[in-house]
Amino acid sequence: MTTKPIPDIVVGRLPIYLRALQRMAQEGRRVTSSQELGERLGISAAQIRKDLSQFGEFGKQGTGYNIEFLAQQLQNILNVDRVWDVAVVGAGDIGSALARYQGLNNRGFRVAMIFDSDPKKVGTKVGAFVVKDSAKLVPEVSKAGIVIAMLAVPASAAQTVADQLVEAGVKAILNYAPISLNVPQGVRVQYIDPVTHLQRMTYYLDR
Amino acid sequence: MTTKPIPDIVVGRLPIYLRALQRMAQEGRRVTSSQELGERLGISAAQIRKDLSQFGEFGKQGTGYNIEFLAQQLQNILNVDRVWDVAVVGAGDIGSALARYQGLNNRGFRVAMIFDSDPKKVGTKVGAFVVKDSAKLVPEVSKAGIVIAMLAVPASAAQTVADQLVEAGVKAILNYAPISLNVPQGVRVQYIDPVTHLQRMTYYLDR
Repeated sequence: MTTKPIPDIVVGRLPIYLRALQRMAQEGRRVTSSQELGERLGISAAQIRKDLSQFGEFGKQGTGYNIEFLAQQLQNILNVDRVWDVAVVGAGDIGSALARYQGLNNRGFRVAMIFDSDPKKVGTKVGAFVVKDSAKLVPEVSKAGIVIAMLAVPASAAQTVADQLVEAGVKAILNYAPISLNVPQGVRVQYIDPVTHLQRMTYYLDR
Repeated sequence: MTTKPIPDIVVGRLPIYLRALQRMAQEGRRVTSSQELGERLGISAAQIRKDLSQFGEFGKQGTGYNIEFLAQQLQNILNVDRVWDVAVVGAGDIGSALARYQGLNNRGFRVAMIFDSDPKKVGTKVGAFVVKDSAKLVPEVSKAGIVIAMLAVPASAAQTVADQLVEAGVKAILNYAPISLNVPQGVRVQYIDPVTHLQRMTYYLDR
């Protein structure tokens, strides 16, 4: 193990490796190689070996990686060898889809509560949850000790809600609102905006 | 303008700049600076100037950027000074949310059709659309000349559908299924998987 901080771009590839390994495990596979992983992922085998080597020795030259072992190690490195409770804010189409999404299961997360500020939505059911009033977001999230939130409110409300989440002790926000958030140091934000992803591809079209 | 290809990481930041500029324009603003943009986005002013300088001269030292002009230039560079038709595949929670999403409007995209393979969903309405049968995906997408798709089917079906999209002439796929896709050269894929984003943040928690 090195003591140098790992570049965030490397950290960002680990979940992709983990996802591919878990899929291979589902397929009944036992062993893989950096070559095979690379082909699946469109990443060079050398890059994968270099990324993994920053965290330890996970395979032997010539024998490849034990899929289950490497997946466990990556879960451990990514702190998802546990289940994190997540608060969803916004019970519109996207927030509701997230609250019902089965894809979080077995990957380290579960939705614990969902909030909305619309009186027509508060008290209604979304999947297994009764929508809570956003007015109670700070005490509820704080009391539950939740440190991860998914933000699915309109752009115009996103910064205000982000401030409340930070006040409640949230340290990681997955932001679906199409706006950049200002958060204090020690709080992380990741962005999901389909349009920015689409525009990154249209750049290459029609040339 | 340089003739060297622009690094994809730079291309990936342009939609973020464009989004911030469009927001400023909505706020009634006329002029901004790389400093102000940088503070909004958590990106250094020097990085923003360097990124933009790869595409031309958009502002003058000391007077800053004209917001409307720079936004137009970025729309032009990103090929979103037009509206692209998009096909959505999968009429579950996520696909339905995408078909109803108003956030594509004025940003270069509009959903043109939505497909599902479930006979119970085919023919039902999702937002403004009647769900089409995935069995007709290749001829319908091809006939409409659609080159962009959003893929919101289960992971187990995603590669098969991606192959059909490629056959239909699609060149850009925004993939919501939590699996890496194999596509031929000349076809681009961007990934939206909330779990990989969350795991990129949990790495930093509890340390």
